[in-house]
Amino acid sequence: MEKFEITILGCGSATPSPKHYTSSQVVDVRGKLFMVDCGEGTQIQLRRSHVAFARINHIFISHLHGDHCFGLLGMISSFGLLGRTAPLYIHAPQELGHMLSQELSFYCRDLEYTVEFQGFDPTVTAVVYEDRSLTITVFPLRHRVPCAGFLFREKPTADHLDRAAADFYKVPQWEYNRIKEGGDFITQDGTVVAHERLTKPAGPVRSYAYCCDTVYNPAMLPIIKGADLIYHDCTYASDDSDRAIKHFHSTAADAARTALEAQAGRLMLGHFSARYTDESILLTEACRIFPNTILAKENLTVTI
Amino acid sequence: MEKFEITILGCGSATPSPKHYTSSQVVDVRGKLFMVDCGEGTQIQLRRSHVAFARINHIFISHLHGDHCFGLLGMISSFGLLGRTAPLYIHAPQELGHMLSQELSFYCRDLEYTVEFQGFDPTVTAVVYEDRSLTITVFPLRHRVPCAGFLFREKPTADHLDRAAADFYKVPQWEYNRIKEGGDFITQDGTVVAHERLTKPAGPVRSYAYCCDTVYNPAMLPIIKGADLIYHDCTYASDDSDRAIKHFHSTAADAARTALEAQAGRLMLGHFSARYTDESILLTEACRIFPNTILAKENLTVTI
Repeated sequence: MEKFEITILGCGSATPSPKHYTSSQVVDVRGKLFMVDCGEGTQIQLRRSHVAFARINHIFISHLHGDHCFGLLGMISSFGLLGRTAPLYIHAPQELGHMLSQELSFYCRDLEYTVEFQGFDPTVTAVVYEDRSLTITVFPLRHRVPCAGFLFREKPTADHLDRAAADFYKVPQWEYNRIKEGGDFITQDGTVVAHERLTKPAGPVRSYAYCCDTVYNPAMLPIIKGADLIYHDCTYASDDSDRAIKHFHSTAADAARTALEAQAGRLMLGHFSARYTDESILLTEACRIFPNTILAKENLTVTI
Repeated sequence: MEKFEITILGCGSATPSPKHYTSSQVVDVRGKLFMVDCGEGTQIQLRRSHVAFARINHIFISHLHGDHCFGLLGMISSFGLLGRTAPLYIHAPQELGHMLSQELSFYCRDLEYTVEFQGFDPTVTAVVYEDRSLTITVFPLRHRVPCAGFLFREKPTADHLDRAAADFYKVPQWEYNRIKEGGDFITQDGTVVAHERLTKPAGPVRSYAYCCDTVYNPAMLPIIKGADLIYHDCTYASDDSDRAIKHFHSTAADAARTALEAQAGRLMLGHFSARYTDESILLTEACRIFPNTILAKENLTVTI
């Protein structure tokens, strides 16, 4: 199966802790690397990880709180020092555009590559990136400020040709693509060989939903439904649910309920408050509702 | 002796390395804490250190390269989250003022304390901070952009009263201060007891010079002369002296020569290039010229 991997660079919340870095992760889809959020220290974590950072061409910023974007300038500068020449695309809430451009003019005058800002509206669901094999959709979360979630979804692929069957029926090579896309084959004597006899079904379409920072947000369920993996805000345990609501964050139970209702494959909890020296309390709480749950941690790579 | 301590938070150069954080340190003079430079990740290091960060009221920024100031916004934000109410003074090259004020309005709208910007001209030697026991002087270094060094110097203190001698001559308490400041004592029968018999000399005036980033810069020698400790740019070893000159940085030999010519007490090398996995080559090189040399490292505290 083609690569579809998430590597966590930071999964702490805003208040710095000795245990966690602030939010950042890298999504690797078939060798294309997408960064999601870029809190302070992301470039440090990136150098410690095995992520081939030169292959990161797109960075997605969910919202404009510092713990999700204060690493951006340092990383842009360091990419310059390390000899980057390829353009870097920053996808972020529209209002960052002007500020970032001023900061780049002030701090990063000598870059030998271009930073292309691509603003989006975090209050509207929309596809903001698309290539041959992938779409990335922005959708609204519910946080203190406009905040986006991101859905990474593979595009359906054509069925795989069954070479043995194709050889048996003497299918000429120039027919292969048409058959993979759904066509039948007609032999020289007029016999119809059904598409299904010549192919094996393509693998299921995989998807990954990043939902951080948010309170419990049922409005997003139709968008993330069936995701193989959901990364969800899990700042607090349920005994701090008042605090969660006040700060527009989620409890472990909120995250698990979301995964259950979205019929997700797996749930990864993240954005942990610095108050938990041991996050197993969060894991236990979530697993009671949605057993297939794991805790994010720095340098963890999860394969979808 | 009153406290005079330097704690290193980061001593790497601009390119991120898995080994070092970018420039930042805290100078503790008699319980008052001054931060010098604030590269990305400073707040992370601060939380890992034993520095009482709430007592940091002044931050000095040497120049506007990201590895010396990209940690500022994150730290200012986190101080807010952690409930700071005391004003925070940022002393930095004048041109940062406008940019910082824009960034604060954009990213840090809800601070419950004030950030007071106090700009200086890094091309001019001037006292930029003074209290009862300390002066901090800015002086020009030679870097690619205007860049300041900082000299922390204790003010001379009054001599210490020798209590046994004072009791012997029956000196009344209300005379103590006058005698400590240099006065003699006259007994009731008219005998003059010399100041020197009643006091012990105050400790020597201590000073610390922060000289990072710079090429070898003899112009600063009169200012830092006799410093108890010099922290000096030591980005490269001598076999990279071409590179050092090109980037306006120093070699270990440049740093040692500066310490020798300044008749310093000790030299601490810092701002290491990421190319050195083992910095002992830099230490060896410097010690040949100035033996009383140490390597900076994260979380090292040096007492003056």
